[in-house]
Amino acid sequence: MEATRAYSLKDLAEACGGEVLGDAQTLIRGIGTLEQAGPGEITFLTNSLYRDLLHKTRASAVILGPSDRNASPLPRIVSDNPYACYARIAQRLFPFPHAVPGVHPSAVIAPTARIAPSASIGPQVTIGAGVVIGEGAVVGPGCVLGEGVTLGEGVWLYPRVVIYAGCEIGARSILHSGVVIGADGFGMAPDRGGWVKIPQIGRVLIGADVEIGANTTVDRGAIEDTVIEEGVKLDNQIQIAHNCRIGAHTVIAGCTGISGSTRIGRNCRIGGGVGMVGHLEICDGVTVSGFSLITKSITQPGVYTSSIPSQPHRTWMETLANLRALPQWVKKLKALEQDIQKLKEE
Amino acid sequence: MEATRAYSLKDLAEACGGEVLGDAQTLIRGIGTLEQAGPGEITFLTNSLYRDLLHKTRASAVILGPSDRNASPLPRIVSDNPYACYARIAQRLFPFPHAVPGVHPSAVIAPTARIAPSASIGPQVTIGAGVVIGEGAVVGPGCVLGEGVTLGEGVWLYPRVVIYAGCEIGARSILHSGVVIGADGFGMAPDRGGWVKIPQIGRVLIGADVEIGANTTVDRGAIEDTVIEEGVKLDNQIQIAHNCRIGAHTVIAGCTGISGSTRIGRNCRIGGGVGMVGHLEICDGVTVSGFSLITKSITQPGVYTSSIPSQPHRTWMETLANLRALPQWVKKLKALEQDIQKLKEE
Amino acid sequence: MEATRAYSLKDLAEACGGEVLGDAQTLIRGIGTLEQAGPGEITFLTNSLYRDLLHKTRASAVILGPSDRNASPLPRIVSDNPYACYARIAQRLFPFPHAVPGVHPSAVIAPTARIAPSASIGPQVTIGAGVVIGEGAVVGPGCVLGEGVTLGEGVWLYPRVVIYAGCEIGARSILHSGVVIGADGFGMAPDRGGWVKIPQIGRVLIGADVEIGANTTVDRGAIEDTVIEEGVKLDNQIQIAHNCRIGAHTVIAGCTGISGSTRIGRNCRIGGGVGMVGHLEICDGVTVSGFSLITKSITQPGVYTSSIPSQPHRTWMETLANLRALPQWVKKLKALEQDIQKLKEE
Repeated sequence: MEATRAYSLKDLAEACGGEVLGDAQTLIRGIGTLEQAGPGEITFLTNSLYRDLLHKTRASAVILGPSDRNASPLPRIVSDNPYACYARIAQRLFPFPHAVPGVHPSAVIAPTARIAPSASIGPQVTIGAGVVIGEGAVVGPGCVLGEGVTLGEGVWLYPRVVIYAGCEIGARSILHSGVVIGADGFGMAPDRGGWVKIPQIGRVLIGADVEIGANTTVDRGAIEDTVIEEGVKLDNQIQIAHNCRIGAHTVIAGCTGISGSTRIGRNCRIGGGVGMVGHLEICDGVTVSGFSLITKSITQPGVYTSSIPSQPHRTWMETLANLRALPQWVKKLKALEQDIQKLKEE
Repeated sequence: MEATRAYSLKDLAEACGGEVLGDAQTLIRGIGTLEQAGPGEITFLTNSLYRDLLHKTRASAVILGPSDRNASPLPRIVSDNPYACYARIAQRLFPFPHAVPGVHPSAVIAPTARIAPSASIGPQVTIGAGVVIGEGAVVGPGCVLGEGVTLGEGVWLYPRVVIYAGCEIGARSILHSGVVIGADGFGMAPDRGGWVKIPQIGRVLIGADVEIGANTTVDRGAIEDTVIEEGVKLDNQIQIAHNCRIGAHTVIAGCTGISGSTRIGRNCRIGGGVGMVGHLEICDGVTVSGFSLITKSITQPGVYTSSIPSQPHRTWMETLANLRALPQWVKKLKALEQDIQKLKEE
Repeated sequence: MEATRAYSLKDLAEACGGEVLGDAQTLIRGIGTLEQAGPGEITFLTNSLYRDLLHKTRASAVILGPSDRNASPLPRIVSDNPYACYARIAQRLFPFPHAVPGVHPSAVIAPTARIAPSASIGPQVTIGAGVVIGEGAVVGPGCVLGEGVTLGEGVWLYPRVVIYAGCEIGARSILHSGVVIGADGFGMAPDRGGWVKIPQIGRVLIGADVEIGANTTVDRGAIEDTVIEEGVKLDNQIQIAHNCRIGAHTVIAGCTGISGSTRIGRNCRIGGGVGMVGHLEICDGVTVSGFSLITKSITQPGVYTSSIPSQPHRTWMETLANLRALPQWVKKLKALEQDIQKLKEE
């Protein structure tokens, strides 16, 4: 993909506060991996292990860390954090799309909604009573905002996001298509062989600079609110149940499910396909390996795991048979101990 | 959250058939947990373990079970099922929203659809030929109902639900945003290195008083129908494959997947993140622990589990290494048995 | 379900290239399982194990494999691949719906979009600038196509599919409701305790004859493209992360998540609820059992598994306790070995 205009290496270095070595006027129109980048593109080395690829790259410039500053003769940008530098340069080359302010005539807007003049409301949108939409916010085609929803400035809703009544989205947060915020939590009381629905009267409060992936769901609180703090990043297809709190800057990978009332600390990294039971407290700085299950609160930062990598089917079946036979092996082991004890005593 | 009007404790007790102790005219405008409730709010004690919190609550009234009837000096409601009583009182305080009857002018309705006068059809809705919508049903913004869909009375579709042709939703059922009912089941026949699509000609039949969480999917049957019986509660992000039958009042937590043609009995409780392979029969009254896998039919009620809770990463890696070495430990154990046998015989 | 017209057995045999035995003029209006089919319907035997059911069927005709060609006195179609023959006959009896060409007046179409005259654009659709839609393609109600999206001829989008800018869908592919193609991949760089978003500038390229189930998501590439090759079949609620490549004719069952940059070969069969970590290479012809985790590249075709079937809860808890005690049992075993060694030496 080619940027709409070229930038000098000097311009790009300013985007990330990096230092330029070599020709600062080198013009860049694109970005690529070490292997795929071509002339006119900038590439990046974030791991010295790939220095070999660096020598073969066809890119016109490269982003490097301090320890690799002389690893290439190409015009280059040296940064303490080359990966973040790449991210900021890519943002400069490929700025987020800028929506045209205004309300599409097909949108259905309640008269009491307050929409900032610089906001953009797309086609087929429905906006309920008392909604407040901040400056520069974008509501993509087909989104539905319930009564009293608040979008901070610069919020970006991709097409077909639904936000139920009363929920709040912080400034600059990005919600991808199919996201559902504020649906009822899964709350019901057993009664005479059936279930009585418990009204879910809490809200969902989402902080600033949050990003939520496609088809992820965050349920509203039963009584109190479900809270996603600032800077949290949620991947696709995640389920966050009612009354959860996700601490600032925590990231959660796809297909993970967090049960009700669990609180996850700040700066955690939760893998994909993880499950957490309800009512847990996970402290700051916890990493959970993908495909693991958390059933108890965690009070110490660190990495927690219960996932099992696959093996060839027959090997795994043998392992599994032995696993299930463990109680009987343990019994045998104990019998042997006694036998040996006797033999020793003889 | 405050109710739109206050209710006397006497009014609320009637909602759940409870007995009032203390001042029956106490006015209540909200509901809260033992810790969070304040003046003008009612709280509830559903587990005697939390009696300590009861003594500190700032609530104006409390819901209790018979064994705790005198555990508080506050005005109170005593109920045989205090949790269900709380649910019913919350419903009284916070009644489900009542949609205004009528069809929004932006909705696209086939001429042959029959819509009850008291039903409410929101903006941007598309309704196909021959659809029948019962009294008091609500079709939220952006929903799409295929040809011949039937909604019973009082059905509530939140925004952006899709129901494919021919499916039926029973009275008072609630479908949350992003739900897709009646998409094609995953059926195809292998042929010459590729796949031939098998038309999915069954429907989805959903009983009365079912609730289905956000972004859950229920596929139509291949030949016969997929059936969700009355009172079933499905959480978010669940996948029910073609030809399944879920028995009445069974509840399934989020992120669970049920493979094709599996039949689950009545009053089962299936945890979150569970998997079930296809063509199983699960009897009534089965509980499956979260994150477990069911591969065989179950004929006895009870709890079934295969999930593994996480440990610190290094501990788990050691366990895993031992697990994989099991065949070799078992071999050693057998060798030791023989050695000891020989020693004994000497 | 009854077909809109009757077909002779001869007509149906032509649909799959099968041989007719018995009365070729037998009229068929429907299809059913061996147990459920009635008069006027055709059934099928794809596994000789069910011959008993064949003898009891009330169907008017049956599809059989060569080894069962004389297993029934009914009028019948003999095919080398009776299951694929059933699929093709079902397609003949129940042809895929045929949309009426034209653009619904409520659709919002950018002036620069090019829509083939025979395509069908439903109500409430939004189509961006530069979109190209092929002959006979169907865009269901509420779909949103971003700028520059391309749909091949005969593509079928069910209601409420979203395709982000620049993505391409190959001819005859079917995308079910709630599918999101081309949302941003989960890419961000850690920086000063927070995260910097990495622009996702790749696309999603989907080949011909692909089918994608309800609420499945496929993210756009970070730099290069995410690719789904021809003939791939994805079930519901699947997550395919950025930069993945799924090889031709591979099938993936529901609720599976594939992490970024993983490449799966051709003709693989991936079960439901599977997880794959990122940056793997899975060769052609691999089968992964449901609920298994793949953490390493696979270079040999075959079946790979790590799933654990449930047991009664108490049994499993005992097994789990033994599993966790393994390091201590292994220690004991080693001590016994030494003891025996000593005893032997005495």
